[in-house]
Amino acid sequence: MTPDDLSARYRDYIDVLNRQDWDRLNQHVAASVCHNGRQIGLEGYRAMLEGDFQAIPDLRFEIALMVAQPPRIASRLSFDCTPLGTLVRPAGSWAARAILRKRVLHL
Amino acid sequence: MTPDDLSARYRDYIDVLNRQDWDRLNQHVAASVCHNGRQIGLEGYRAMLEGDFQAIPDLRFEIALMVAQPPRIASRLSFDCTPLGTLVRPAGSWAARAILRKRVLHL
Repeated sequence: MTPDDLSARYRDYIDVLNRQDWDRLNQHVAASVCHNGRQIGLEGYRAMLEGDFQAIPDLRFEIALMVAQPPRIASRLSFDCTPLGTLVRPAGSWAARAILRKRVLHL
Repeated sequence: MTPDDLSARYRDYIDVLNRQDWDRLNQHVAASVCHNGRQIGLEGYRAMLEGDFQAIPDLRFEIALMVAQPPRIASRLSFDCTPLGTLVRPAGSWAARAILRKRVLHL
């Protein structure tokens, strides 16, 4: 897999998130996926994302920067959205999740 | 420059930081360097690092993960160190700085 192939696949993953096309999530995320060092599994990952979209109805993932070196990819994601209430997550969590994605994509 | 060349260069940069070899910082950091979107310049960058080492005498940068796609590189840095007092920076700042480094290395 070339860097361009991996980048295309990552863009497809982000597209799945933005469409909330959860039935396709397993094409990009492993059954044993870890999040911030904790194994939450595909169902846990999906539940977390569904919770994110409930808390932030206009949530949209935008790729600001991407660095691909198969089998890893790193990205900086940018967000311009409005949470309905108070988010429980710590401030650093989004940055951590951007880094997480390269781990999700250990292909 | 290949991904391996860039990775070697990044490791040399981290070595400069760990040795506090500030006279060599300009071999890795541009005069007009930006940090978290703000242009602080090489002198501002050096002053920030010197302040970090004053606040955290056992500060050491360890590369946990690296993704190189010239001209960019991304890394996850891990820290096991003990600040002397209360750090002023927000919790997410270290993660942001790990991402910054790929911008420093736009060669």
